This record gives sequence, structure tokens and C-alpha cells, in this order.
Amino acid sequence: MGEGRGAGAGDHGRSPAGRLRRLAPPWLRDYRRAALPGDLAAGAVVAALLIPQSMAYAQLAGLPPQAGLYASILPVALYALLGSSPTLAVGPVAMVSLMVAAALGPLAAAGSADYAALALTLALLVGLLQAALGLLRLGGLVHLLSHAVIAGFTSGAALLIAVGQLRPLLGLKGAGGDRLPQLLAGLPTGFGQVPAAGAALGLTTLVAILVLERLPLPPRLAAWRKLGPLAAVGLATLAVVLGDLDGVARVLVVGTVPAGLPKVTWPTWDAGLWRALAAPAVVIGLAGFAESYAMAQALAGRSRGRPRPDRELLALGAANLGAAFSGAFPVTGGFSRTMVNQGAGATSPLASLVSAGLMALSVAWLTPYLARVPQAALAAVILAAVLRLLDAATFRRLWAYDRAEAALMLLAFGGVLLLGVERGLLAGLAATVGLHLWRAAQPHVAVLGRVPGTEHYRNVLRHRVLTQPAVLALRVDESLSSLNIGFLRDRVQREVAARPEARHLLLVCSAVNGIEGGALVELEALVADLRAAGMTTHLAEVKGPVQDRLDRAGFPGRLAGGRIFLSTHEAMRHLESTPAGLPLTA
Amino acid sequence: MGEGRGAGAGDHGRSPAGRLRRLAPPWLRDYRRAALPGDLAAGAVVAALLIPQSMAYAQLAGLPPQAGLYASILPVALYALLGSSPTLAVGPVAMVSLMVAAALGPLAAAGSADYAALALTLALLVGLLQAALGLLRLGGLVHLLSHAVIAGFTSGAALLIAVGQLRPLLGLKGAGGDRLPQLLAGLPTGFGQVPAAGAALGLTTLVAILVLERLPLPPRLAAWRKLGPLAAVGLATLAVVLGDLDGVARVLVVGTVPAGLPKVTWPTWDAGLWRALAAPAVVIGLAGFAESYAMAQALAGRSRGRPRPDRELLALGAANLGAAFSGAFPVTGGFSRTMVNQGAGATSPLASLVSAGLMALSVAWLTPYLARVPQAALAAVILAAVLRLLDAATFRRLWAYDRAEAALMLLAFGGVLLLGVERGLLAGLAATVGLHLWRAAQPHVAVLGRVPGTEHYRNVLRHRVLTQPAVLALRVDESLSSLNIGFLRDRVQREVAARPEARHLLLVCSAVNGIEGGALVELEALVADLRAAGMTTHLAEVKGPVQDRLDRAGFPGRLAGGRIFLSTHEAMRHLESTPAGLPLTA
Repeated sequence: MGEGRGAGAGDHGRSPAGRLRRLAPPWLRDYRRAALPGDLAAGAVVAALLIPQSMAYAQLAGLPPQAGLYASILPVALYALLGSSPTLAVGPVAMVSLMVAAALGPLAAAGSADYAALALTLALLVGLLQAALGLLRLGGLVHLLSHAVIAGFTSGAALLIAVGQLRPLLGLKGAGGDRLPQLLAGLPTGFGQVPAAGAALGLTTLVAILVLERLPLPPRLAAWRKLGPLAAVGLATLAVVLGDLDGVARVLVVGTVPAGLPKVTWPTWDAGLWRALAAPAVVIGLAGFAESYAMAQALAGRSRGRPRPDRELLALGAANLGAAFSGAFPVTGGFSRTMVNQGAGATSPLASLVSAGLMALSVAWLTPYLARVPQAALAAVILAAVLRLLDAATFRRLWAYDRAEAALMLLAFGGVLLLGVERGLLAGLAATVGLHLWRAAQPHVAVLGRVPGTEHYRNVLRHRVLTQPAVLALRVDESLSSLNIGFLRDRVQREVAARPEARHLLLVCSAVNGIEGGALVELEALVADLRAAGMTTHLAEVKGPVQDRLDRAGFPGRLAGGRIFLSTHEAMRHLESTPAGLPLTA
Repeated sequence: MGEGRGAGAGDHGRSPAGRLRRLAPPWLRDYRRAALPGDLAAGAVVAALLIPQSMAYAQLAGLPPQAGLYASILPVALYALLGSSPTLAVGPVAMVSLMVAAALGPLAAAGSADYAALALTLALLVGLLQAALGLLRLGGLVHLLSHAVIAGFTSGAALLIAVGQLRPLLGLKGAGGDRLPQLLAGLPTGFGQVPAAGAALGLTTLVAILVLERLPLPPRLAAWRKLGPLAAVGLATLAVVLGDLDGVARVLVVGTVPAGLPKVTWPTWDAGLWRALAAPAVVIGLAGFAESYAMAQALAGRSRGRPRPDRELLALGAANLGAAFSGAFPVTGGFSRTMVNQGAGATSPLASLVSAGLMALSVAWLTPYLARVPQAALAAVILAAVLRLLDAATFRRLWAYDRAEAALMLLAFGGVLLLGVERGLLAGLAATVGLHLWRAAQPHVAVLGRVPGTEHYRNVLRHRVLTQPAVLALRVDESLSSLNIGFLRDRVQREVAARPEARHLLLVCSAVNGIEGGALVELEALVADLRAAGMTTHLAEVKGPVQDRLDRAGFPGRLAGGRIFLSTHEAMRHLESTPAGLPLTA
């Protein structure tokens, strides 16, 4: 439970009550009574949202409704006890449910017992992976996924989910498919194919949820807005019951939900199965963590300190292991539910513990009332939730800021839609690394001149600066590696050829954060080439760590009359009066 | 033929002789007669080396000896006519032969007709790939392979080849295996298993080659040293003939080599086969090009201009297509033969044309004398050649310069030995990218102070500098991305916490070559956090391209009282007297 727990408990340790306090997590030890009403209310509101949402996401994952309900009990409680974000709401989320369906679809029939068993194994693998990464302090891996790729991936997954939910929304049985073309091909092509009662229920529920979300309410009633999905689904269920729609009009309903708390379940221990599920487990584990961590970061108040990635991984790992052993499926921290949790007044993990407790009571007592919830209403809940994830604003912002990043977002978006969630994410990841390397391969190089009246040197193309004909000062805006040393060499030779009067080349290394061993060999060859052509090469503003390496490699001796100056200004003052080829006085 | 060919030919175009001259490649048009003796001698010496070497490398690739001889005719001539390096010697090389054996071993039995047909298809694919990359101007891809990875890969392949040639050297039949453990397991475990005559021939030839290499000769006879391998193999063959060793002592010999020039051969056009060979073709095409290009770069005289990667790819592609249609196997530019070529006096592609011509004469007339060359002697030729490629010097240099790069070299070396050539190379490539990202993820950050008497600011830990308590100046030595923005944020918060008297944070961006969109969002959050804690954030030395983007994104407005200064000095002069939170006067 992280740093500080148990340590420095001081006086508390002496009395029995103090010893009990020592066992409590820090947030509970320091709990302020004033926070209680907000935490209780938020816990109740989130549970009210979780009942329809968790069944809907189980449906999206291809699992029976109780799997979603179970995923909202033990995993939620485990994250609340272990996580580093006090108000992050963990549980079944749309994106992970979609990935579960994509992973298990090829291995078993959705809804079958085999399928449910595979979901447990998948949760086990995701949990083990996340816990292992957390223990190995590899949480930083999540940073490989750039903002643009996460945004594109999330929007793509949201669109995929939305299109996939159109059939259930219209009262039809859901059809498989984890790519956009398949899903579009499965849509009904005429009104005749759509059952009127089911479609009416679904569309009405969707409109009701969207309207309730936007209803202008006086501030003191605003919290009630969060109950919109529960109310809408409740009304739809009431309509089924009153009109006997599942009987007369054959509206598809959730069906019997077993009553009682989840039983302990055992994932399958089968090496072949583990190998088949390893790749999706890695993708779900990392993408789920990335989504959850991004949310936790966004939540962390300005002054409250940041979530710690390794601790978050451990807590999510525990939540997924909890899912594996309680009949659920992979979970993570979700965007919308967390917003609801905070909006309803949560300030501590107690809110999530309350949610988990209420969900446990629900599966114990409410299941008879859940059997006749229409599936179309659950599809409406999913659709209303994922439509908010279509993130055109980020795309517009990236497009204005950096076209290449906007292209990355588009690639991840299109990749998810056309290649499926796993390959789409991997394509985005590969393109991020590729862009990184491509940019490093063609660095910005500026010819420098002195800003009049200062000792500061800037790009001649952008600033009104003073240059000296005898000295060519070049600033290389990249670390030197085999990727770009050839490019740099060509650029230097072009600049030198354009200035026959230049006698000295000054490489300003203020932006050179490292020089690869192979690039150093090439740099030495360049120095020798220029020497043969009558030019002396000097360096300036070499950073400490780079200078250390150059010294160890004996590079200064190979400058053949050239020097390494502390500052560009010092170099320019010395070089303006020094003919090339002569040793310099310091 | 590249740029300049045909263009600007001036007067030459008017007479018939001039028109002929226009068709000639530039080196031939400008040929100086004084270069002729050197080119002729070098061509002859390389041919003398090629006869045993090419048969030996064919043996290493699992092919009949004539495949090696053929690989030394048309491919050599095609590169000479098209390549951009005048003295690079192309043909069969040890590393590529090893990769051919590793690629084809699982698909057919070495020595069979199917195997030889597969080698042609592989050469075709390698040629097509290289030509396509050259036409698409993607030669820069080769820079993905860092110096360290190429050095480690070459050393690993050399050791793999050396161990694999121990059986043939001892007079035994070669055994399969493309990894070190397999090869070691195949070695004889007692003297009883080793045929005395074969082993004696092999070991004597090896010693003879190594001694002839090192023999102190007067300078005017030094060129004869190059004929050592031919002489040693010749003597070994003479021993076989005189002692009838292939009959009496069952010494393994090359066997019948068909006489006459290579016939036109047609690679197999079979989609399934192409798919199976696609991965090795990519690896051989890129690794072969990397080896060849590295050699061409090293060759290019200090002032003579560099080889152009795209043109080199085209020329190597043509050479491999030539190999595919003339009964050979994949070729590339080799280290040792090129050194021999230059050392023997070559200055133009004419030397390679002479070699190719002499090899053509050899297959026409010399084949009867080649049948009784002992295989053990050819193994000695290979061993002597590859021992030079074990590059401990580069490892020591990298170890002194940068442990991480030395580790990369070791990883590529060990990867080739334990995983085989393809996977070893890919592991090295992945580790290079990983190291790159890992370093970008934890940038060097320096607290700056002013160097007394200047306007220059440096790391307080390395230089005696002056600081101001009210201003914390931090220089970040890396572009900002999702990889490192969290790291930077933590570091800034630590530095700020350690200086309660600081009112201004100045981020010196001289080494920030780009700011990713997602990182900018995080940076803005950091600015707001610091603002809430009573600190104002400023930037200095922002590069032009970065400034443009920040302006477009409206970042300066979000500095909330902070400013972007041209230079660190300007910023420090203003900030020392400015209380935080007040708007600054420019």
C-alpha cells in the first residue's frame, strides 16, 4: 500500500486502537468526517450507473450480464484499497470490453461457458502482467504510447463500439466482427428487418439518456442528473414488464441473472491457452493501463501530487486478478464513471468501497428485477457513453500544432477501425517510433550570427544578427547518431562550399545531448576532410556529459588545431582574428 | 550512371567518337592512362584471390563450387559499371553466404538442385528489394543499423563461420547448424574421429596462409603477398594430385566443376516460395547493403566525396539480379577483397572488370585443375579471412566511450551466435531503438548559473558559476515528448521544492528540438501547478521551429505572467528584480 503505510505511525502503535489504525491505509487514518456525505452519495450514484453499465459492457464483451455485475464488486474494492488515485472509478469499461470480445471471438462462441472461462484466464494474464510490470517498476512503458496515439485509438475504439451497438439498439441480436467493414456489412438494410418494439425501446432510451444529460436543472438538483441512465433503463424495463414486450413482441431481454454473490472461480491453467491469450493480454494490459493512468493524471488536482505509474499498475493488476477469481473479466479505470464519481462528491476511496458494497447488495437482492431489462436499452447506455469519447477536438488541436502528430492520431484511429484494436494500437506504436527516428534523422541545422549588443547567437534566417565571413557557426539541433551523421556531413559540406571565405567551422553543440560512438568516428572523418580543404573545426557549448565522453575518446586531440570553447561568444571572439591551421592561444 | 551522365557532355557529342564517349560512364571518359598498370595488376590479384575464395564461400553457402565462380563474373561486372565506389570489390562474401545457408537450410538439402534453385530465387528477391529501395531513395534506412550493432553482428557472424568451418578444416564433411551451440555440438570430440590426411592438409594450408600474410617482404614484393591464399591452395591441390590423396586417403575434394561460362538461369516464380524467402531476403538485402556501404564509406578518400546510398543500392541490386540470372547466389561488397583491390593499386572500376574477365577465362579453361582442390584448404581460406573480422578493438573503444553502446554490440554479437543471423540482427535493431527511447525518456537536466564575466550560463555542478536565489534556471537536454514529460515534471517539482526562495522558474530550451502535442498539454499543467504554488514559469532560447508551434498553439498566453525570452542572460537580468506574479516589462 505504498510508502508511508505503517511507517512513522508514532503514538498510534501503543494502544489496541492505535495498532488497528496502523493497519489502515493512509487515507483512512487521516479521514476527515466532513468528506463522508460526499463519498456516500458518490458511491451510491456510481452504483446506480454501474448496474446498467456493467451489464451493458458484459454484453459488449460477449459475456452474460452477471459477469459485468461481478466485475463491479471485488475488482472495484481491490483498486480502492491499493490504488494511488483516490477517486478513479475502476470496473468494466467499453474499450477493454471491446478488446476482450476481439480476443475471445476467434477462440469460442460468445455467451458459451468456454467463452466465460477464457475471459477469466484473460483477466488472470492481464492481472499478472500488470502486477509484474508494477513490481519491476516498468510503469514508464506506458509513455511509449503518445498522446496522439491514445487519442486516435480511443476515438477509433469508440466509433467501433458505437457502430457495433447499432444492431442491439435496434432490437436485433448482436453480430460478431471487430473491424468497421464487417460491422457495417452486418447492419440492417431496410426497415423490414428491424423489430418495431425493440427499436422503439432502444431509440427512446438513447434519446432519454441524452436529454437527461443535458436537462437544465437547478444546481442543487444537478447531482440527480447522474441517475439518468438508471432511470431511462428502469423506464424501458417497466415498459417491457407492463406490455409483456418480451413475450408478445419478442423484445430481447437480459434473461435470468443468477442471484447471490459471485462464487470463487478458477481460471484455466493451460500452457497452450496462455500462449494464445498472451498477445491480447499484453495489449489489454498496456492499453487498459494507459487509459486508466491518463484519467488518473487528468484527475490529480493541481497541487495534490501525481499518481505513481508503478503503484497504479500494481493496483490494476490486483483488480484484474480479483476479476479472474470472481467470475468477471478484465477491468480498468474508466473515463465517464470517474467523472461521475468526482462530480457526485467523492474525495476518497471510500466512495468506490461504497459502490462495491451496493453492487454486492444488488446481486444479492435485485437480480429478479434485472432479468427483463431490454438489451436495446443497454445498447443505448453504451452508445451514450462512447459517443463522448469521439475526440475531434484533440485532432483539430494537433492538426494546428503539428501535422505529423495529427497524422499519427489519424493512423491509430483508422488502424483500429480497419485492422482491429490490437493491430491498430501496434500500428500506432510503430508509427510513433518511426516518426521519432525520422525526425532524428534529419535534424534542424541553423547558421548562427550574434544578436547585436549581446553575447547571444541565433539563426541568421530568423533574427537580425551579425556574422563573420571567416567563421561559419552551425548549430545542430539533434544528438548525433548513425541516423543523422551522414545528413549532417552533407549539410556541413554544402554550407562550407557556399562560403569560400570561411576558414573556421564552429559546431555549436548546445542541442547535442549525446554523440553515438559510430557518429564520432564519422565526425572525426569530417574534421579531417575539412582540414584537408584548409578549414579548422571547433566546438562550442558542449554539454558536460558529452564532453566527458569526448575527452575519454581522445577527440579534442583529433581536432588538429581546433578547440572546444565554453561558449559560442568566446569562440567567435577568438576565431575572428585567427587564421586557420595555426594553433590557437587560449 | 547517376547524375551527370550524358548531361553537359559538351563537344564530345558532335563526332562519332564523341558520341561513343558520351555513352561511357564518367570514370571511363576521364580515364587517365597512368592508372592502367595499377588497375590491371589489382584486377589480376583479386581474381587470383577470388578463385579459392569464391569456391570456399559457395561451399559455406551450401552450394557447388561453380556457383561461387559464377558469382564472381556477371555480378562483379555489373557493380563495376553501376556503383558509386570506384574500388569496392563485390562478389560472394562470408557473412552473406552464411545467411544464405541459414535461410535455405530449412527448405532444401544443401548441395541439391532444389537448393541451388532456391539460391537463385533468393538472389532475385534481394536484387529486387535493393533496386526498389534505391529507386525509392530509401537508402537512408541503412542508418537504422548503428555502428555498434553492425560491429557486433559482423563479429558474431565471423565467429559463427569460423566455428562452422572447423569440421571441413579437419577434413570432415560440413554439418548443418546456424547457431553456436549446434555447431559446437557437431565438432569431433577425439582424435580418432579426425581423418589424418585431410586435417593435415587443412591445418597446413591455414598456417601457410597466415604465415604468408605476415611474411616480411621488401616493399616492391609486397603485392605478391596477396597471392598467398592462391599459392597455399595450389600447393595443397598439388599434394592431393601427387599423393592421390582423394583416392588413397579419401581426402574430400571439390569434385567436377563444369567447364564453360555460366548459362542463363531462371529463378523460380512461385508466390509461396517468395513468401517463404521474403524475410531472409529483407535481412540479407539490408545487412549486405550495410556491410558494403560501410566499406564504401571507409574507402572514400578524405576529399573524394562520399558514396551515395541510393546509387549503391541500385548497383548492388543489379549485381544480385545478375547473380540470379547467371547461376550464382546473393553477393555484396566485401571487406577483405576490397582491401586487396586497393592495396594492389586499383583506382577505377576497370580493376573489377579485369577481375570479372579473368574469372570468366578461369571457368572457361581452368576447371579441370579445380576438381581436386581439397575442401579442407578452402575451409582454411575462409577461416583466415573471417578471423580478421573479429573486432575486439571496436568493442574496447565503445566500452571506453559508452557502456550502453558496448552492450548493444555485445547483444548483437551474442544474438547472432545464439539466435542465428536473422534474429540476432533484429534483436540488435530492436535494442538500438529501445536504447534511443530509453535515453530520450530520462533526459539530462542541469541547473544553470552564469559564468562570471560573461553572458554564458552553465551547469552549477560542473562550472564555477553565479546563481540568483529568486530564479531557478533549468536546462532540459532533450526534446519534450510523452516519453519524458512526466520525468521532467517530477524533476522540476523536486528542484522547486528544494528552493523555497525561488519565485521564477526559467526553462532554458536550447536543447529542446521539439515539443510533442501531448507533452505541451502536460507542460501547461505544470505551469498552472507552479502558478498555484506562487511561481511564475518563463522560457528562454526557444528555437525558431519550436517557437512557431508554441505561438500557433497559444502557449505564450498560458504562461500567466511568464515570458519567452530570447536569451538566458536577458531572462536573468529581467527576473532578478521582478517579483513573481506581476506582469513583466519588456
